[in-house]
Amino acid sequence: MKQLQSLRQIYPPDRFTEDAAFLAAFESDGLTAFRQRPLAVVMPENADEVIATVRWCNEHRVPFVARGSGTSLSGGSLPIADGIVISLNRLKRIISVDPDQRIAVVEPGVINLDVSAAAAPHGLYYAPDPSSQTICTIGGNVAFNSGGAHCLKYGMTSNHVLGIKAVLGTGEVVTMGGPSTDSIQPDFTGLFCGSEGLFGVALEITLRLLPRPQRFHTVLVGYHSLKDAGDAVSAVIDAGLLPGAMEIMDALSIEAAEAAVACGYPEGAQAVLIVELEGPDEKLQHERKRLEEVIAKTNPFAQRVAVDEADRLFIWKGRKSAFSAVGRLSPDFLVQDGVVPRKRLGEALVRIQAFAKESGLRVANVFHAGDGNLHPLIMFDDRESGALARAEALAGQILRMCIEMGGSITGEHGVGVEKREYLPEMFDAASMDFMHRIRQAFDPNLICNPGKMFPGTEAPALTTHGLHPLEKSGVISRE
Amino acid sequence: MKQLQSLRQIYPPDRFTEDAAFLAAFESDGLTAFRQRPLAVVMPENADEVIATVRWCNEHRVPFVARGSGTSLSGGSLPIADGIVISLNRLKRIISVDPDQRIAVVEPGVINLDVSAAAAPHGLYYAPDPSSQTICTIGGNVAFNSGGAHCLKYGMTSNHVLGIKAVLGTGEVVTMGGPSTDSIQPDFTGLFCGSEGLFGVALEITLRLLPRPQRFHTVLVGYHSLKDAGDAVSAVIDAGLLPGAMEIMDALSIEAAEAAVACGYPEGAQAVLIVELEGPDEKLQHERKRLEEVIAKTNPFAQRVAVDEADRLFIWKGRKSAFSAVGRLSPDFLVQDGVVPRKRLGEALVRIQAFAKESGLRVANVFHAGDGNLHPLIMFDDRESGALARAEALAGQILRMCIEMGGSITGEHGVGVEKREYLPEMFDAASMDFMHRIRQAFDPNLICNPGKMFPGTEAPALTTHGLHPLEKSGVISRE
Repeated sequence: MKQLQSLRQIYPPDRFTEDAAFLAAFESDGLTAFRQRPLAVVMPENADEVIATVRWCNEHRVPFVARGSGTSLSGGSLPIADGIVISLNRLKRIISVDPDQRIAVVEPGVINLDVSAAAAPHGLYYAPDPSSQTICTIGGNVAFNSGGAHCLKYGMTSNHVLGIKAVLGTGEVVTMGGPSTDSIQPDFTGLFCGSEGLFGVALEITLRLLPRPQRFHTVLVGYHSLKDAGDAVSAVIDAGLLPGAMEIMDALSIEAAEAAVACGYPEGAQAVLIVELEGPDEKLQHERKRLEEVIAKTNPFAQRVAVDEADRLFIWKGRKSAFSAVGRLSPDFLVQDGVVPRKRLGEALVRIQAFAKESGLRVANVFHAGDGNLHPLIMFDDRESGALARAEALAGQILRMCIEMGGSITGEHGVGVEKREYLPEMFDAASMDFMHRIRQAFDPNLICNPGKMFPGTEAPALTTHGLHPLEKSGVISRE
Repeated sequence: MKQLQSLRQIYPPDRFTEDAAFLAAFESDGLTAFRQRPLAVVMPENADEVIATVRWCNEHRVPFVARGSGTSLSGGSLPIADGIVISLNRLKRIISVDPDQRIAVVEPGVINLDVSAAAAPHGLYYAPDPSSQTICTIGGNVAFNSGGAHCLKYGMTSNHVLGIKAVLGTGEVVTMGGPSTDSIQPDFTGLFCGSEGLFGVALEITLRLLPRPQRFHTVLVGYHSLKDAGDAVSAVIDAGLLPGAMEIMDALSIEAAEAAVACGYPEGAQAVLIVELEGPDEKLQHERKRLEEVIAKTNPFAQRVAVDEADRLFIWKGRKSAFSAVGRLSPDFLVQDGVVPRKRLGEALVRIQAFAKESGLRVANVFHAGDGNLHPLIMFDDRESGALARAEALAGQILRMCIEMGGSITGEHGVGVEKREYLPEMFDAASMDFMHRIRQAFDPNLICNPGKMFPGTEAPALTTHGLHPLEKSGVISRE
């Protein structure tokens, strides 16, 4: 494309491509229902190249999406038609690890788990652990303020990012926050976390490291009823325990995980609960006793304690594989992500099952139970006419239920393209206007990942065809 | 004043005043060195009156500062000449306490400690505990992202604010965040925390409550050397302990506290360290043993464990009274607030003493040692010509040292009027521009607490006289 010629000069030929076969690999992200082909993909190797690219985009008003491994589950890293993709996977330097200050400074393309690997010799680790942590990148974690099983105790990505150097949509390079854990000024770093690529591109990220827990105590509990498992979560918290993680899987997701990785969960369980305590030995001795007492009162029919680290990872394997495993039960599925108050988990699950029954679709439930973060997996067969629309309507019912119950339409996957239309149901017009104004302070020309998060047709260059509501509004196209 | 006539119509006569004697009570805040008289003080009783007032200010381009108890230590709640004060003390409703969700919704004028009092029947409390917590308000805590002795373990105010409903400088009423602990979107709530009143006025604040620790183990340790006390802090952290608080006071501040409240700290101590462990009984039993082992190796010459709650509060009394107690040693003093990396505490203290010696002024040191947050108290006598200038020059040296050591010019007191000139030494021009742009998205007409935080003469209406550099730049006046 002619327009891109001056951009091409920034890169050697092997790191700038318009080749259709190559572009196809970037057409989609973890939300596989949607596809879009970019004009080109560039692969910078350092911050200067990223800065030059963003400045070029701003000057030529060419929109871009910066992406790492593209594991977004809300379509956040979906390409933009008439836009380019800035692939950040080569910016994968761990710039420094400071065990005294307990911080690491990394580039955005660093894989989440590689931070912990680099910190391990010092007895430290990086706490946020999305299920995709073996492949997802810190830049993406920042963009979506990612969570993970251990958010219950440790909070989200934003709780672990101390500073960010970024290039904004204007082309300016700014520093937000810094190495100090005490704050100065409004929390610009926190603002950037969760901005879904709309504010600019993070170039250097200062992460907080924590001492590795000395020991884990991981319990797998089987229940004959999903409600009992849900109630157990509140009972554990009410007993004053704060596990590192508390996860629930329902019968369908257990079936899927069993088929996929033979994780040996209790046969006949309608739900399993994984509770993981962590800390020094002496503390665990007392807490595990307390946990046993609490669990005993929640009608479990089976229980298993991990005997060693291998066994612990084996218990987690079922949970961590659940999303992909559900693919075995259904040709297509939507992963939903909503939040309800923890005490209303049981009620929410009952309502989701009722919605599912009405719509004639199966829903598997996997969730970060401790913080009320639901992940309903809505199964459908895209070859059936209208099936996707039914699945999406069901997803909408679930999200509206979350709003109504005082929760949120996303716990950790972000708004992306998938949930843009629901945002105004959570926030009133003045609040939406205000958010948009803030966004424009970062990116006045709307070149940074336009069409994501905010509803409206602000990325007119996007291809419009098909019948999906998001397609109608001009946000995405689907093959 | 004629211009204010239409504002007067919003209020009954007893809640709008231009009376000089009354205004005098609002002339200053916790940073007593500076004074400024506002045009008028209004005392709204509900959110609608605040909104109407801000809209009036925006329409008439009259700047305002909203304040609670005025305990700011950086001049953040200092009035603006030709501006009004919105006194929020009457907005003191605790709107709701939800023990299931562990949240409280409060108005900005609620006293910090009153939140914990309201939560206490449910076994919950509000964690951030500035030393002024018996008098300071939640609105002010939000504005300055206040910390306290227990930040080490629990973080700052922004870690405990889930949602904010606010009126912006534009007069718009917006909602940021919400009751869910999982986040959605960029962290606008975090952005508002620490904005020092420049973005608007918080009307309703949703706070996270925590279960009250079951038990405390509070140890007072005396040292013959300040360095040993500083090194002890790192030793405790390196041993894997995470106390709720770790505080150090040096010889001068001990002397002051002793004179003021007879707190019975070990005689002849060059430094005392207060370490407070907290949690369930069994956990404490192990941790206190570990703490004893660690402390034994740090050359203490005296140690005392609080035997009961009264004794615990007695130990804390000396620390909590330190700022005011220093007033007994010196007619005037400046409270400084800077942060250095924890491991470099000892080095920082040695350098501060050298600076003090050079300048011929005494400096007492009180600090949140666990997070490297220093509070040097610089003593001077304002009646001596040039003494304030010398004290401020010394404060500047200390702040520049903090920047150079990779720390921050404020841990919790904010930038206010006192440290505006140092901000550009921490952040480059592009970052400053960007911050200013964000601020303008909230308050395009710069009516919200102008002249604070950002350097420059953006509040031209401010009275200019005297010789202080801040006065020269037109920010404040002093009597």
